[in-house]
Amino acid sequence: MNLDANGVKDEPLFDGSILTEVDFTLCSSTYNPAITPTNPGENLKLRPLCKSDYEKGYMELLQQLTVVGDVTYEQFEDRFDKMSSCKNSYYIVVIEDTLTNRVIGSATLAVEQKFIHQCSSRGRIEDVVVDNTYRGKQLGKLLLDLLTLLSKHVGCYKVSLECKDKVVGFYSNFGYIKEEGQNYMCRRF
Amino acid sequence: MNLDANGVKDEPLFDGSILTEVDFTLCSSTYNPAITPTNPGENLKLRPLCKSDYEKGYMELLQQLTVVGDVTYEQFEDRFDKMSSCKNSYYIVVIEDTLTNRVIGSATLAVEQKFIHQCSSRGRIEDVVVDNTYRGKQLGKLLLDLLTLLSKHVGCYKVSLECKDKVVGFYSNFGYIKEEGQNYMCRRF
Repeated sequence: MNLDANGVKDEPLFDGSILTEVDFTLCSSTYNPAITPTNPGENLKLRPLCKSDYEKGYMELLQQLTVVGDVTYEQFEDRFDKMSSCKNSYYIVVIEDTLTNRVIGSATLAVEQKFIHQCSSRGRIEDVVVDNTYRGKQLGKLLLDLLTLLSKHVGCYKVSLECKDKVVGFYSNFGYIKEEGQNYMCRRF
Repeated sequence: MNLDANGVKDEPLFDGSILTEVDFTLCSSTYNPAITPTNPGENLKLRPLCKSDYEKGYMELLQQLTVVGDVTYEQFEDRFDKMSSCKNSYYIVVIEDTLTNRVIGSATLAVEQKFIHQCSSRGRIEDVVVDNTYRGKQLGKLLLDLLTLLSKHVGCYKVSLECKDKVVGFYSNFGYIKEEGQNYMCRRF
């Protein structure tokens, strides 16, 4: 439990101290201006998703990404608690505009445990979204660099993401490779 | 806790009764001879991964798939317990040859919880392997059909898998589609 700016009890999805353990100087990206996870920009704060983010527009932000549907706070909290109970599995980070108290960016590192590779884990970057009106501030890049480094920090032997053709070049800047002869297939219900 | 054939206490990764809840008649594949998850073939049994499978060659089977490394029973059990504690997340099924008491096939359905799609989930079929000497018995097909149906049964809005070029045709038989313009990128550590 944390106290938010108004002294209200809140609960992060995971212990945010792990974000400060990531050595961000290891990332190969160039930032101009030089933002970091601890200093993501003026009036911006990067931190774990909290329960109070339901009120701060987290679900509305996700709607800029894909279908979300109507989700009540109780449904949100139930899902939050289930993710939280899966230890070391869900690292959802958000960027909040501390002037408006709105969540304006988010990305997820989902960690799948494995028996292969010496009982290793595999990371997946999922649901990266930055609010339309906050584009051009390097925030997508910041989220991606952070979660990629975090995946290594938590012991993943590899990390992957899915993307459309037009952003393959963008993601290759982060060390992601479209491996020859490897396909991704999907069945929707 | 279950008792195995020798009356030894054992522990499945998940409650196997969910496998019997899957209506296998819904799968569109044709089986000749007509095997099913409950009758996978003579002297074969399909069931959840159990702790005793460490002794029954589960890790050796995975070596036919990829790098596994030396894993002690303690390491195996630790990973097993961590997966098990993530409720409704890891469905690893195995096929045992009941004559030799060896695990000769396995596949994993890993379920990632989401906030999108009305707090839905996304399934991934991972680590499908059938022992070289048991090929041609439709066991890979059986595992894939079962876990695909299971992913829907447990509420996934979609299920995906990764595969090499040469098996795209094979997986398309199961309703999997290589979606136009969708890429999968990976970074290895």
